[in-house]
Amino acid sequence: MLAEIITIGDEILIGQIVDTNSAWIAQQLNAIGIRVKQISSVSDDAAHIVNALNEAKTRADIILMTGGLGPTKDDITKTTLAAYFGVGFVQDKDALENVSRIFARFNRPLLEVNIKQADVPENCEVILNKNGTAPGMWFDHEGKVYVSMPGVPHEMMYMMEETVIPKLKNTFILPSIVHKTILTVGEGESFLAEKIADIESALPSHIKLAYLPKLGSVRLRLSAFGQNEAALQNEVDIYATQLVNRIGKNVVTDKDVPIEKAILDEMAAQGLTLSVAESCTGGYISHLYTQHPGSSKVFLGGAVSYAYELKESILGVTNETLWKYGAVSEQTVVEMVEGALRNFKSDYAIAVTGIAGPDGGTDDKPVGTVWIAVANSKKTFAHKFVFGKKRMQNIERTAITAMGMLINLMRENRPQA
Amino acid sequence: MLAEIITIGDEILIGQIVDTNSAWIAQQLNAIGIRVKQISSVSDDAAHIVNALNEAKTRADIILMTGGLGPTKDDITKTTLAAYFGVGFVQDKDALENVSRIFARFNRPLLEVNIKQADVPENCEVILNKNGTAPGMWFDHEGKVYVSMPGVPHEMMYMMEETVIPKLKNTFILPSIVHKTILTVGEGESFLAEKIADIESALPSHIKLAYLPKLGSVRLRLSAFGQNEAALQNEVDIYATQLVNRIGKNVVTDKDVPIEKAILDEMAAQGLTLSVAESCTGGYISHLYTQHPGSSKVFLGGAVSYAYELKESILGVTNETLWKYGAVSEQTVVEMVEGALRNFKSDYAIAVTGIAGPDGGTDDKPVGTVWIAVANSKKTFAHKFVFGKKRMQNIERTAITAMGMLINLMRENRPQA
Repeated sequence: MLAEIITIGDEILIGQIVDTNSAWIAQQLNAIGIRVKQISSVSDDAAHIVNALNEAKTRADIILMTGGLGPTKDDITKTTLAAYFGVGFVQDKDALENVSRIFARFNRPLLEVNIKQADVPENCEVILNKNGTAPGMWFDHEGKVYVSMPGVPHEMMYMMEETVIPKLKNTFILPSIVHKTILTVGEGESFLAEKIADIESALPSHIKLAYLPKLGSVRLRLSAFGQNEAALQNEVDIYATQLVNRIGKNVVTDKDVPIEKAILDEMAAQGLTLSVAESCTGGYISHLYTQHPGSSKVFLGGAVSYAYELKESILGVTNETLWKYGAVSEQTVVEMVEGALRNFKSDYAIAVTGIAGPDGGTDDKPVGTVWIAVANSKKTFAHKFVFGKKRMQNIERTAITAMGMLINLMRENRPQA
Repeated sequence: MLAEIITIGDEILIGQIVDTNSAWIAQQLNAIGIRVKQISSVSDDAAHIVNALNEAKTRADIILMTGGLGPTKDDITKTTLAAYFGVGFVQDKDALENVSRIFARFNRPLLEVNIKQADVPENCEVILNKNGTAPGMWFDHEGKVYVSMPGVPHEMMYMMEETVIPKLKNTFILPSIVHKTILTVGEGESFLAEKIADIESALPSHIKLAYLPKLGSVRLRLSAFGQNEAALQNEVDIYATQLVNRIGKNVVTDKDVPIEKAILDEMAAQGLTLSVAESCTGGYISHLYTQHPGSSKVFLGGAVSYAYELKESILGVTNETLWKYGAVSEQTVVEMVEGALRNFKSDYAIAVTGIAGPDGGTDDKPVGTVWIAVANSKKTFAHKFVFGKKRMQNIERTAITAMGMLINLMRENRPQA
């Protein structure tokens, strides 16, 4: 079963927002065995939307759209769909009740444009929008399913989870897709490929292997397509085990989780705690950990010590060290990480200090120079890196490299089986 | 002049990665007056790539592709393009030198698959990849330009900035597009629309207004299309001024920057400093500020105080307050914000504490309950919010709401003209 996603909105095409909806929708569809054939982003323009629908229906049976359902003039998805299906509008009682309820809750008068939000094409089934005023719409038309949802992520997500996914499961007999992902750090894509070449060559045609490199880590993803989910899972697990054994110490996890989640899980299982002292990453490492539910079991917190004074007062870095060696130095990062361990009373700590850029570099310490340290009560390990010139990349790269160093230190200390 | 972006990779279609390349490329193209007509994401499948190219060339003159250029078996973009243009391969000397240099730098033997990365379709012009082994490719074919770049963001970005954008400017006579964005907080989309209805109706046909709502803020974007950039800019500025005057105190800025950047700029202009004390946002607020170059002029740092102990030791929240009122309480958030002001010696501070979820809620304090405080030396202001059930949304919503509160406090204290 194939689906296509069409995201509608000029703001996507001028790059003002990143389309995060499509990836989320694709994940949900894959989980129930619906493959996404194509994702298209088109403008708030009727002819262009119609063209995208016409192309999509030649390839897919399910077409999910987001965007263009707001109350303002630039939102034309609803009128375009009514014209596309050749139908008129009716006012939907539940949708009107919903929009009235939302305005009442915020003590706002209901405007004409808001009442109009309850008008829907007469061939659609309304999807309740618990988090907003624009109703979603489900259309059955000439053997295909079309769904239109708002572009606001949490409104769309609620509709998908509560209505669209359950309804798709009831409407179609779905095949199975099983994915398994192995996260590796410390080796490049081509070396991994060389190392596992014979395993890859021996994969049956219904199992694909993809390499997904990202800033110092590479994910290997096995995907199996077929009818019997249990059998596919079993097959994929066998190949995954072969890959894990072959790749050895570079494997972080065989679950499809980001590196920080793998760390949280491993630490939680061992009852360990973590704190961080961040300078150049400015809270990004803490954010990566704390976006995950349950992170508070492991992650105690930390300091974002941009200013010299905060490195001293929160972390106990000495004034002498800062002035003698500079904020970006081995001495400072070691005092930071040991200060975090001591002051925040965690089992492990990470500290980073560097020049994220684009300004602040010197001949000795160009932009991209970063010191990273990881420590536990027995051992402190610090290393210098010189990354690139781009601030956000330096921040991300520092974070992932620090996590790789933390994993290595944890593995040295891992209880032996 | 119209362009289309095609991103190639199964990892996009199963939702394993969010396609951030497209938005970045679209921004770069818009800045030089090239409009993006459509963005399509397709699979690592030759027939599908060819189909996307055939569709794109009916709509656009410039087709930019990313992805599928790696050394492994799932990367088929290069062979697909050679077949599409009906040409063979040649080894490119510069590309081979580049890949050899990269492997030498890391002391790695050059494998057969890597040498093959220097083979390119014979009708292309090679684009140097300074940050990776896969060369980019520029094709002139039947009056259209096709560009193929790697999917790794920093490799693609370097190629765009160093080669593709300059070459597009030299190849085409480009029209102008001028955008201006007004960021507002505190009013919904339909109220803004009602308030500015007559200004919107009076816009000439070559100027469009779009509403971009996002978690408590709405951006209004004016876009003007034409030939004379200076005249367009002038026109757009006139309408923008009308909008700003009409909307009044809900306007944060008339620059196209996120809310935290508007705060940094306003504080920097007034010589003010900021610190934060984050519990439920776990570093996200700090990260939002510190992703911006130059943020260290304003942002001193802060604490990510997940654990009770860190709220006490770094921020000076009393043990009695925590146990009597709980970590998520007015008393605690006030002590946090005042502790941040005092300990971090900043002019302004933000503190947040709440239950991000999905666990940890109680009958009194359900998931989504958040206390936010902002303070300067004269005034502390705290407010309770009850957001939703989704962790990442609660984190983002808390951050943007805190920034809105900070702006209000700053405006109360703004030096009078």
